[in-house]
Amino acid sequence: MRAVFYAGNKKLTVGEAPQVAPGPGEVSIRVAYAGICGTDLHIYHGHMDARVTFPQIMGHEMSGVVEQVGEGVEVLRPGQKATVMPLHPCGECPACEIGHGHICHKLKFLGIETPGAFQSVWTVPAFAVLPLPDELGLDMAALIEPLAVACHDVRLGEVKAGEFVVVLGGGPIGAVIALVARENGARVLVSEINPHRLALLESLGFETVNPLERDVPELVNRLTDGTGADAVFEVTSSQAGAELMTKLPRTRGRIIVVGIFNKPAAVDLHRFFFRELRLLGARVFEREDFDRAIGLAASGKLPLSALVTDVLPLEKLEDGFRMMESGGNAMKILVRCGE
Amino acid sequence: MRAVFYAGNKKLTVGEAPQVAPGPGEVSIRVAYAGICGTDLHIYHGHMDARVTFPQIMGHEMSGVVEQVGEGVEVLRPGQKATVMPLHPCGECPACEIGHGHICHKLKFLGIETPGAFQSVWTVPAFAVLPLPDELGLDMAALIEPLAVACHDVRLGEVKAGEFVVVLGGGPIGAVIALVARENGARVLVSEINPHRLALLESLGFETVNPLERDVPELVNRLTDGTGADAVFEVTSSQAGAELMTKLPRTRGRIIVVGIFNKPAAVDLHRFFFRELRLLGARVFEREDFDRAIGLAASGKLPLSALVTDVLPLEKLEDGFRMMESGGNAMKILVRCGE
Repeated sequence: MRAVFYAGNKKLTVGEAPQVAPGPGEVSIRVAYAGICGTDLHIYHGHMDARVTFPQIMGHEMSGVVEQVGEGVEVLRPGQKATVMPLHPCGECPACEIGHGHICHKLKFLGIETPGAFQSVWTVPAFAVLPLPDELGLDMAALIEPLAVACHDVRLGEVKAGEFVVVLGGGPIGAVIALVARENGARVLVSEINPHRLALLESLGFETVNPLERDVPELVNRLTDGTGADAVFEVTSSQAGAELMTKLPRTRGRIIVVGIFNKPAAVDLHRFFFRELRLLGARVFEREDFDRAIGLAASGKLPLSALVTDVLPLEKLEDGFRMMESGGNAMKILVRCGE
Repeated sequence: MRAVFYAGNKKLTVGEAPQVAPGPGEVSIRVAYAGICGTDLHIYHGHMDARVTFPQIMGHEMSGVVEQVGEGVEVLRPGQKATVMPLHPCGECPACEIGHGHICHKLKFLGIETPGAFQSVWTVPAFAVLPLPDELGLDMAALIEPLAVACHDVRLGEVKAGEFVVVLGGGPIGAVIALVARENGARVLVSEINPHRLALLESLGFETVNPLERDVPELVNRLTDGTGADAVFEVTSSQAGAELMTKLPRTRGRIIVVGIFNKPAAVDLHRFFFRELRLLGARVFEREDFDRAIGLAASGKLPLSALVTDVLPLEKLEDGFRMMESGGNAMKILVRCGE
C-alpha cells in the first residue's frame, strides 16, 4: 500500500508501506480522504520534529471505510464508513483524572506522535474510531475533525442565539467557527486580511472586515450600539490579534483563544479588569464536539464544500503543502488516499 | 468641619470645609474611620489628576454614623451606623442596561470623581449608603469596602471548598482575598516578596512562598500532586506576576486578574490554549459582595484587626501616605475623621 513520508527538512517522499493487520483493540480503515491541517504544515516546516518519528506519516483529518477489525473489537464492522477522533489520552495523569482527557498531560495525537492518515490504510485504536451515517459523503466527512474543533470552541465560548460574535482570522478554522457560531444563532463578523478569504466568507453570507483597512473596534461598537461583542474568537495567533481581541468585547464579554501562539504576546490586562472580560483557551475537542460535528456534516446544513479548495491524489500531497504555503488562497485541501 | 485636600503634585493640606446639608436623596454621615486605599496613593502621586477635581477630598473606604438625611430618604435614620458602597452608575449605558452597573461605561467613583471621605462629614447619595449592624465596631467597619472587593474577586473566581488557591501578592487586597478564599474552604498559598507581609500572612495561618527565593510552579505542582492550582489571583500588577499566573493553574484552572496593570504585559497565550485556562478580570464589587462583606465583618470570623498597621488622626493623613510609600511594611492605615 502507498504512504507519504516526511523525512525532515521539508522533504516528502511517496512510497510503499507494509499493510499491518490490526492488533487486539485496533481497527484498520481504508482512508478515503484526508485533509491537510495547519499542524501538518508546521510538521512539514520542521517546527515539530521533536514530536514526530522519522520517517513520519502525517495526517489526522480523515474519512474512510473500516477494512478490518482486531481481536476484541465488537462495535465496529468492515464496510462501515468511519472517521477518527485522533486523541490518545494516558488515562492516568491529573488532567485525565479530572475528566480532561482531551488535554491530557501526556496526550498522544494520532498522526503526530503516531503514524497518520496520509496512507492507503490507517490502523488506529478502536476507541478513536467513530462510525458515520451512510448518507454522509466521504469527501465532506474528511472535514469533521476541523468542524469538531469549531464545535468545541463555540461550545466553550457559550455562543447563544442573538449574540454578536467576532472571529479574528478567517482561515479554515476561523471559517468553521463562524459557521458553527451562526448555526447557534449568532450574528457573526469575520476579520481577515486576505482578499481571497474575505471574498469566500462574504459568499457564505458573513459580514467581514479587513483590519488593515478599517477600525474594527469602531465598527463593532457601531454595529452593537456601543455595547461591544458578546464573544471574540482569536484565530490569528498574531500580536495584532492579541491587541484587537481585548478592544472588542462588551462588559463581561468572552475571548476564546484558539490560535496557537508560539511566543508570549503583549496583552492589555487592564482592559480585562476594566470591563471584567473573560478569556479562555480552547484546544482540540471532546467526544460531544465530535458527535455534534458528525451530525452537522450529515445534516447538510453547512456549506462545507465551499471550504474545499482542491482535492489531490495522495502522490500530489506535496503540491497541497505548497498551495497552503502560498498563504491565504488555499482553504482546505483534501487528498485521496486509499485508491 | 475639617477635611484634607489634595492640591496636586503630592501636596496635601488640612483645612476647614463648609458642612453642607444633605440635598434631596442625600445622606450626611459623620465619618468615624476612613482607610487609605492604593488608589488614594495613586491620586496622591498625581497618576489620576485627569479624574479628580482640585482641591480634591479623597477617601472611599469608610465607616460612620448617619448624621442627617435629605428629603425623600426614608430607609436611613440619624444615629445609624453605616458604610458607603462608593459607586455611582449612570443607569443608561450599555453596561448598566445589561446589569453591569458596577462597571458602568460612565461610572463615577465616590471619592474620585466626587468629594471623598477624608473629612468630618461626608454627604453622599442615599442609594450608596448601607446600614451596619450595631454590634460591628466602626474601626473594623472601615475595612468593609476592601473586603467587598475580595468577596467579589473570590465569587467571580468561583472558589469552592477543597480547592487549592494561589494569591500572587500579599498586600491589603491580596490578604483579604486569601481570607475570603479560606473562608470558602480553600487551601490558600500566598506568594509575596516583602518579609514583613510574609510574616504577617504566616501569623494568620497562611502558607506562603517568596518567589524570589523559591520556584513557585515547582512548589504548587508538589503541593497538588502534579495537578496545579484550581485558581490563581493576580494582585501584583507586575510582569513577574503576569508570567507566573499562567504557570500555576491546572487544566481549566482560573486566573483572576485583580491587579491594575498600567501597561500591556507579556502573557503566555499558548498556555491558555494548552491547558484550556480561563482568565477573568474582576473590578470593584456588586451589592451582594458588599452584603457578604458586612456579614463577614460583623461575624468576627476574620482576623481583620491584624491587617490594620496604624490608626492616625485626620491631620496626620499625609504620614499615612508616607508609610504606604515605604512599600510593604504598611498594610491598612486608618484615619479618624469625624472627631
